[in-house]
Amino acid sequence: MKLALIGVGLIGGSFALAVRAVGKFDYVVAFDSAPGALQRAAALGVIDEASPSAAHAAIDASLVMIATPVGSTQAVLRDIAPNLTSSAIVTDVGSAKGSVIEGARSELGAAFSRFVPGHPIAGREHSGVQFADAALFRDKIFVSVPSVQTDAGALLTMETLWRDIGCRIERMTSEEHDSIFAAVSHLPHLLAFALVDHVAAQPDAARKFAMSGAGFRDFTRIAASNPRMWSDICVANRIALGGELRAQRKLLEELQYAVDSGDADELHRVFTRAAAARSQVLG
Amino acid sequence: MKLALIGVGLIGGSFALAVRAVGKFDYVVAFDSAPGALQRAAALGVIDEASPSAAHAAIDASLVMIATPVGSTQAVLRDIAPNLTSSAIVTDVGSAKGSVIEGARSELGAAFSRFVPGHPIAGREHSGVQFADAALFRDKIFVSVPSVQTDAGALLTMETLWRDIGCRIERMTSEEHDSIFAAVSHLPHLLAFALVDHVAAQPDAARKFAMSGAGFRDFTRIAASNPRMWSDICVANRIALGGELRAQRKLLEELQYAVDSGDADELHRVFTRAAAARSQVLG
Repeated sequence: MKLALIGVGLIGGSFALAVRAVGKFDYVVAFDSAPGALQRAAALGVIDEASPSAAHAAIDASLVMIATPVGSTQAVLRDIAPNLTSSAIVTDVGSAKGSVIEGARSELGAAFSRFVPGHPIAGREHSGVQFADAALFRDKIFVSVPSVQTDAGALLTMETLWRDIGCRIERMTSEEHDSIFAAVSHLPHLLAFALVDHVAAQPDAARKFAMSGAGFRDFTRIAASNPRMWSDICVANRIALGGELRAQRKLLEELQYAVDSGDADELHRVFTRAAAARSQVLG
Repeated sequence: MKLALIGVGLIGGSFALAVRAVGKFDYVVAFDSAPGALQRAAALGVIDEASPSAAHAAIDASLVMIATPVGSTQAVLRDIAPNLTSSAIVTDVGSAKGSVIEGARSELGAAFSRFVPGHPIAGREHSGVQFADAALFRDKIFVSVPSVQTDAGALLTMETLWRDIGCRIERMTSEEHDSIFAAVSHLPHLLAFALVDHVAAQPDAARKFAMSGAGFRDFTRIAASNPRMWSDICVANRIALGGELRAQRKLLEELQYAVDSGDADELHRVFTRAAAARSQVLG
């Protein structure tokens, strides 16, 4: 069984290692537009063959996994569409789903029913194939986001595969997915990037970073994430993220008023609700 | 040597354990306004004696450590002032320094020169004496924030004590302190509380929290911090924090525009600067 892997980063590389480890694929052909990525992946034994294009990699593949930044997904689908076999499954791991699914509908024609959209919740702030790990998906959630047209056999194949490499499957609509991850992933990443950029722009930034404690390190860890991956996600999910950001800015405006006026009671009310939720729900 | 400890939480309790472990104090008398805190501290062996008031605890103490939320510091100073011996040193661990120092100047009279303001960078999201740890301050930064009136002998005594229990000393003015920690501590806490409150207020909050990954957990860890402690800090440092929050909101307004208009390049520019700063400075 041949896997075509488009995008050989942390997630794509880990997927290739994991599916090979459970014996589901014995040959991995890959394409990546980043210079050197394919050579590194081959040297690490993550892939068997470097392909000159996504279109070329897709030939004869039983599964095409798209693990690029989401902004490239539609172009990849356009490239591979003419070369897909009639039984090939196409899948992705993008953190935004609605726009990816619309792109697939536009590009794949009849093959759209064999496009199985998904999102494993297994990111790290490190990116690149050098961090690829066959165990990355173990005990993680895989969000399965079928459309009403998704072929039931293809869906079963993919959900079984993700389960085999360690995931628990959560199925939801793309609207639900995009709303949830705008709130618990995309907005936090945007806020973390914004905070670090804000501090880094100050004249005494080095001293400020040097004085920061464990809380700052934890809070800003996700700001070390891949910038292209995250700018793509923010744009791909801009409707839901824009709404979340607008609501968050409204709350910050209220907190600004409380800070400026020294209203400890109002701050205490908000902080108490937040601390209770954080402790109760996430331990 | 007798230590009077006002406020027996994570920091106060850890300080008592640490200074006793290095043999600097052999008797700890404590006051805390929270019901049960003194009993718990006595049961854990953190204190020798529970006192009925801060004023009473201060009698004959060679050092009075104030480790309450900063909003209570001035009232504690007022209570203890009449009972201080002529050689007693008074110190604190508040995360905001300018307003605390002004409060001490108002309340302590001639004893103000023996008020040694400080801030160990050793917080955790857990609070309470049950988490007290004699090793909490090991390899941490202690920010020493003397005023121009601070007695050199008292300052030397306190900096030596913090060094003895494991800290590296960083000395700075209260203005510098409050500016730095507004940026790298107070604003991140406020943003984390605000994000969790925002998500928790949504109708499907439980499902959203359940779907969150490691990034969200790291980002929101500080939102489990003590709400009273943090509302007090935000008010005590409201000038510097208000400025930081205003600047951060301006950046978020720009990012809102970029998200809404699908400007991936602008988002990429900001995220790239942030990721580079985060990786270079904090590893």
